[in-house]
Amino acid sequence: MTERFRQLSPSEFFYRNREIAGFSNPARAVYQTIRELVENSLDATEMHGILPEIKLEISEDVEGRVRICVEDNGVGITPVEVPNVFGRVFYGSKYVLRQSRGIFGLGIKMAVLYAQLTTGQPVKVRTSTRRSKFIYEYELMINVEKNMPVVKRLSVMRNDSKWHGTRVELVIRGSWSQARKRVEEYIRRTAIIAPYATLVVSAPDLNLKFERTSTELPPAPLTGKPHPRGVDVEMLKRMIEEVGKNKALLEFLVENFDGVGEVTARKFCEWSGFDCETRIKNLKVEDIEILAAKMQEYDGWRRPKASTLSPLGEELLVKGVKGVLNPEFVTAVSRPPSSYAGHPFVVEVALAYGGSIPSLEEPLLYRFANRIPLLYDEGVDVSTKVLQRIDWKTYRVEFPAPLAIVTHVCSTKVPFKGVGKEAVADVPEVESEIEAGIRECARRLRAHLSRLERLFEAKRWEVTVSKYAGEVASSLSYVAGVDREVLHSKLLELVRTRVAVGENGGRRRAR
Amino acid sequence: MTERFRQLSPSEFFYRNREIAGFSNPARAVYQTIRELVENSLDATEMHGILPEIKLEISEDVEGRVRICVEDNGVGITPVEVPNVFGRVFYGSKYVLRQSRGIFGLGIKMAVLYAQLTTGQPVKVRTSTRRSKFIYEYELMINVEKNMPVVKRLSVMRNDSKWHGTRVELVIRGSWSQARKRVEEYIRRTAIIAPYATLVVSAPDLNLKFERTSTELPPAPLTGKPHPRGVDVEMLKRMIEEVGKNKALLEFLVENFDGVGEVTARKFCEWSGFDCETRIKNLKVEDIEILAAKMQEYDGWRRPKASTLSPLGEELLVKGVKGVLNPEFVTAVSRPPSSYAGHPFVVEVALAYGGSIPSLEEPLLYRFANRIPLLYDEGVDVSTKVLQRIDWKTYRVEFPAPLAIVTHVCSTKVPFKGVGKEAVADVPEVESEIEAGIRECARRLRAHLSRLERLFEAKRWEVTVSKYAGEVASSLSYVAGVDREVLHSKLLELVRTRVAVGENGGRRRAR
Repeated sequence: MTERFRQLSPSEFFYRNREIAGFSNPARAVYQTIRELVENSLDATEMHGILPEIKLEISEDVEGRVRICVEDNGVGITPVEVPNVFGRVFYGSKYVLRQSRGIFGLGIKMAVLYAQLTTGQPVKVRTSTRRSKFIYEYELMINVEKNMPVVKRLSVMRNDSKWHGTRVELVIRGSWSQARKRVEEYIRRTAIIAPYATLVVSAPDLNLKFERTSTELPPAPLTGKPHPRGVDVEMLKRMIEEVGKNKALLEFLVENFDGVGEVTARKFCEWSGFDCETRIKNLKVEDIEILAAKMQEYDGWRRPKASTLSPLGEELLVKGVKGVLNPEFVTAVSRPPSSYAGHPFVVEVALAYGGSIPSLEEPLLYRFANRIPLLYDEGVDVSTKVLQRIDWKTYRVEFPAPLAIVTHVCSTKVPFKGVGKEAVADVPEVESEIEAGIRECARRLRAHLSRLERLFEAKRWEVTVSKYAGEVASSLSYVAGVDREVLHSKLLELVRTRVAVGENGGRRRAR
Repeated sequence: MTERFRQLSPSEFFYRNREIAGFSNPARAVYQTIRELVENSLDATEMHGILPEIKLEISEDVEGRVRICVEDNGVGITPVEVPNVFGRVFYGSKYVLRQSRGIFGLGIKMAVLYAQLTTGQPVKVRTSTRRSKFIYEYELMINVEKNMPVVKRLSVMRNDSKWHGTRVELVIRGSWSQARKRVEEYIRRTAIIAPYATLVVSAPDLNLKFERTSTELPPAPLTGKPHPRGVDVEMLKRMIEEVGKNKALLEFLVENFDGVGEVTARKFCEWSGFDCETRIKNLKVEDIEILAAKMQEYDGWRRPKASTLSPLGEELLVKGVKGVLNPEFVTAVSRPPSSYAGHPFVVEVALAYGGSIPSLEEPLLYRFANRIPLLYDEGVDVSTKVLQRIDWKTYRVEFPAPLAIVTHVCSTKVPFKGVGKEAVADVPEVESEIEAGIRECARRLRAHLSRLERLFEAKRWEVTVSKYAGEVASSLSYVAGVDREVLHSKLLELVRTRVAVGENGGRRRAR
């Protein structure tokens, strides 16, 4: 019995193992398709300074076919790139060092594949770039064996209305009724993390409109160089090959890595025992291995630059949370940039309390990564792990309580546990930043709750004292011979003033 | 600002996203490398009727390099295939309908990539097929950009000792000290699920030897045809193209699908409204879509054949559990074959109680899938979900209790949640089979515990009665004038006989 060997194309691999990318059942497939489309639309707008305007339309026929259509006002896609962007797995523009929602070059192709294998229908793409005179409309499918796009139809129209953006339409077999709740939750959470976006959903039993509550976009991320801590042997070898000219190690380090100046490079060479003037072409594999190991180990590098990241900022996060959760109290923390294995990251945390938040036995957790809401696999996410070790009594919270926690991890490389992008791994550096963020928010909540308690005490004092004010006024009036009514109203005024003082003092402290 | 697009090769994709395949940190990388090697070795032996003999050697140097070497007595690899098997992602022999540990064509390449990127060292492979006169020794690396193997060295030796098998050696940067416990646990669990294998580990601070406790191999799985329930539009289109000749629908169904005879095919055509005699080449895309949907929907198909599977069987499972956990009580259930979405599967469950199992607050869970022990991500596994809803009081178990549950899911397509193969998704059909298995085992445990209780009661009765036997004997001897000693010994004998009867009765009932 001999084994027959074969090579699968990336398309065929994911076609066979679609549950790995989140397409595991009819409900999840609808959810995942919508996610991929909406996330591409958000990347195509906000990353280019455009306030997102996203329309999601869903319809269903009696045969169980779900038509999903997402239109954005983004930068559009250059017409020659359309077939590859939608029809080749591992083809994309996001393989650079910069924060974006898309990273794997897989999601939208999976949706196209899923349509193809469940309904045999091509994806329809209409797109126009800014200032383009034409609108292009494609219908295309994927040749699974070759991992290549097959264009079924292409038409070009005049763009008289100066429209720019992309509109994608897919028909899949799926279960809208089972997916509806998740999709609604997904859109709600997207509105939390993108308060500058207008999101409109029209679907059977679901009509949503989230108007932007802010017209301020966080600064777009820049493309960066790799950090010396994040190198590996393979990467170094390829970089040395690509440099072309035979440079000295010093120059090589300064020109190709993030935050490495001449001084830092010299110090590193001294520490690691490499000669700054060594020609990099002369390095043997063993030398490169040691060099990579030393670069990973050295702790004299500057922290990775955060300019490749685009955190939301405390103000926008508060706006987003307020707009959607409508709490009584909300606070947010944007932690300073940090890094793991050479990848810069920023953790943001918000805490909301009271108002429309339901009282539950544990905090409601809203997880985000690079502005993507994460709804599945909460059990293995690093934020859940951190939350489980917080003792809320320390912060004066007694469950059941109306408490919601929002965590947001931004990175050029979020350590997702799978290509479905549903859970963040427990990288120690990320874990401790999340904990610090939650505790900071929790301390602010404690201050707020203490203030509420003081207010409550003061009110009780006011009620108690007011109850006796009449009697006290009568007695004083008898002893001092002053008019009882004047005394009574003065006394009540005094009580109210004292309570008001306590209120303001409290507000000042709890920000 | 225009976007720069590029295509990644599968190698480059996984090189960039190695944590998705389980290579997320230095400890996990060691664990994952060992797993991939051991699992390939087991597939190369037991699937071909060879009793596995697997040697794992690990050493470490002061620089943090870990050398991992696994040798088996398997069928070996044809020399021309070696470079692709180790040096091309998505190249493999396991893309067929048959249960095996390997399925993704990814694991071993990830280990090779990881060695390359952390130490720059090539993988060393020594192999010889059965009856081959030569042993081949390769050193090879991966061209990441092209996803192609690069052979660094090849030598051929005479195979005078008639050795066959494969020996793979890799040098990675990793943390052996942090991985050691997991690796030990992994090998222990492998010994549970493969009691016919001899496993020898020699590593720093870890020397293990599990001798096989059985020389009986479960029947090897056969390669099967797809089940009509598991088709999709894409697959049907390709099958129709590949058939070549212009067949009638009836013939096409009978010849290409699992368990479809002429009668079944006719009934299906009638039910679905397709004409049996339709020439398949004339089917339009829309027809194929409807055909696929109807095939998925029809419930008149026979269940998928289980010949593509290779469950362990109750006897071997009990042997495995006994050999490693050394419990007081053990029982196993091999459920009848079932299927989800056209994929056949079998669930096996074992329950062990007492003996060397530690008393804990909840049951110890040992998860397996296609004979792979699953150690990570227990929180999101279907078995955990099922276990959480079992009320053990119903089965007379009061925690803390020395209880261990073993679950084993075999399928031509285990619904893993990621390419790291650590958790099984909660497919409803799989979930209910696991629950049925656990409950069956739990009922047997209850019978056992009831018997123990009866035994305990009987012993107590024996002790109580024996205590008074002397006095009774004296009184009887006085009344009846019989010798006291004779009476006393007869009485004690009677007590012992009654207890023994209870014991046997109990044993019979509890099987």
